[in-house]
Amino acid sequence: MDNVALTQKRDGVVIIDQTLLPTEERTITLATKEEMHEAIYHLRVRGAPAIGIFAAFSLYVLADQTVTDDIDVFLSILKKHADYLNTSRPTAVNLSWALSRMISLVETSKHRSVEEVKQLLYKESVEIRNEDIAMCKAISEHGLSLIKDGDSILTHCNAGPLATSKYGTALGPLLLGAERGMSLKVFADETRPLLQGARLTSYELYKAGVDVTLICDNMAAVVMKNGWINACFVGCDRIAANGDTANKIGTSTVAILAKYYGIPLYVLGPTSTIDLNCKTGDDIEIELRDQQEIKSKFFEKPTAPEGVKCYNPAFDVTDHALITGIVTEKGISRYPYTESLAALFE
Amino acid sequence: MDNVALTQKRDGVVIIDQTLLPTEERTITLATKEEMHEAIYHLRVRGAPAIGIFAAFSLYVLADQTVTDDIDVFLSILKKHADYLNTSRPTAVNLSWALSRMISLVETSKHRSVEEVKQLLYKESVEIRNEDIAMCKAISEHGLSLIKDGDSILTHCNAGPLATSKYGTALGPLLLGAERGMSLKVFADETRPLLQGARLTSYELYKAGVDVTLICDNMAAVVMKNGWINACFVGCDRIAANGDTANKIGTSTVAILAKYYGIPLYVLGPTSTIDLNCKTGDDIEIELRDQQEIKSKFFEKPTAPEGVKCYNPAFDVTDHALITGIVTEKGISRYPYTESLAALFE
Repeated sequence: MDNVALTQKRDGVVIIDQTLLPTEERTITLATKEEMHEAIYHLRVRGAPAIGIFAAFSLYVLADQTVTDDIDVFLSILKKHADYLNTSRPTAVNLSWALSRMISLVETSKHRSVEEVKQLLYKESVEIRNEDIAMCKAISEHGLSLIKDGDSILTHCNAGPLATSKYGTALGPLLLGAERGMSLKVFADETRPLLQGARLTSYELYKAGVDVTLICDNMAAVVMKNGWINACFVGCDRIAANGDTANKIGTSTVAILAKYYGIPLYVLGPTSTIDLNCKTGDDIEIELRDQQEIKSKFFEKPTAPEGVKCYNPAFDVTDHALITGIVTEKGISRYPYTESLAALFE
Repeated sequence: MDNVALTQKRDGVVIIDQTLLPTEERTITLATKEEMHEAIYHLRVRGAPAIGIFAAFSLYVLADQTVTDDIDVFLSILKKHADYLNTSRPTAVNLSWALSRMISLVETSKHRSVEEVKQLLYKESVEIRNEDIAMCKAISEHGLSLIKDGDSILTHCNAGPLATSKYGTALGPLLLGAERGMSLKVFADETRPLLQGARLTSYELYKAGVDVTLICDNMAAVVMKNGWINACFVGCDRIAANGDTANKIGTSTVAILAKYYGIPLYVLGPTSTIDLNCKTGDDIEIELRDQQEIKSKFFEKPTAPEGVKCYNPAFDVTDHALITGIVTEKGISRYPYTESLAALFE
């Protein structure tokens, strides 16, 4: 099934609850804005592109529930819903990107009836999903051009089908390569504190028959030093105009290690992840999450005394100088990124 | 109480079972060689210096249990016990160092009676413990000379009192500084997969009233980038003649990050950790541990599908070029280490 979909009656959004993987594959249906917000905040749905698709479907469902014939009232209500959903996670740009795109559609359709606009919103949300499938496929093709049969790739967090629509971004070339009979080996960082690498990446690759080895985040340096890694592929939540890239906490460590060991590091994501309004990574807001995610979540017992403070940033920013290339559906952009990324939008 | 001690009747070794911390403080008594081996392998006692003290006490207890009047038979039995205990963990040099020291004593005392030698072995094991206390104090003083009031230190794994006798090595300067009223801040890496940083370091520092913040291993780059870290202090399990240092997995990552961000990194440990027989880090055997430590230990549910492979090295080697200084009880050694470390033994 699809990772993010509308119900058959289009009255809710259906997702695989990713917090329960890999031990349980359960789908849940979300029909209220509070449920939708909670699902994003608690990472039941996650991955920048998947959050974008989810936000679009969610806003359509909320629009369909809105009872008014007045297009201005309709727009005003939808804007409130969008603003509310947008507070669920601050770092991934795809959330605000998808919500803005849906709101813009209403703004440019104010000469139409509310019912007509609801239909347009439905089509737009499906279009956002379909575009993502096409983008992931294109990203996968471009990414695959960077590696060869027998290569071994290190990845961090999860940027596979669960994080997108199909194929994924960072995992896309690996799944596409496997489909074509290539023999690829993947090392997956477990990605503390929420273990997306263990729970989702190793799960997706293992299910797809890809040779995957799980390591703790602090073991990446060793597999690099052992000469086992040909390239690092990571996803992205927001890319600034200069190429600085916000992605899951730990990505910048992988990038610094890769630089030290002379291994190329590629960031893979759709152009919708590029935010030219952010000049550099300093402009990207980094989400700080609950300290208990470090100390007690997943664990049978607390791992540190109750009073011990934790610092729990959800993302970090990787300096553009550490990035060998940024792979989007339009191709591979390289340094200087200020020029190469701007060119993607011309 | 002491972290590693003999029972009052000297018929067993008493340790705090470190696998139960921080939720439970329980002491256990070990009287057979199988129990002693298991305690080291399963990290009930851990930390290179503490393992050395534990091995010395253990060999004394086993010697005392040995019923023979023939000194050659006695030596032969003790050698077998020592060889057996020595297989419990391959990387920390202090284990073989302490066992060799005890065996050498028997070899040079063959003109004495077995009962006399048993008494000598008792004194030697207590001496190894007492020397460690003095060494940790000296290391702490030297380490403290490298930092000033208000500084913030990042540490990895646990090299505190629990890993030694008193004060510790990497944590020694911080605990000594705190005793003297200095205001120091510590960031502790949780240290996957066995979480010694969370369970032991944050526990020891918190109990001692030191301002400690726990982070996941993959967050060290962010606190460094934020400008929050003045120096990194780490322990060591074996130091090669050229300064290459084996320490808990993840240490080399901290060192590469510190180099990248221009932060000094100091290795702290007694000279007994220096193994001049190892020319470089390539000569140090790295222990590979059970894959389940990554996937299921501590966790309420498995974190990855049953079939997923894991790679679980317990240590890594930090290149000497990444080490600002090696702090022993004799002072601070700096590059070129081949000369400065050799000078410690002249």
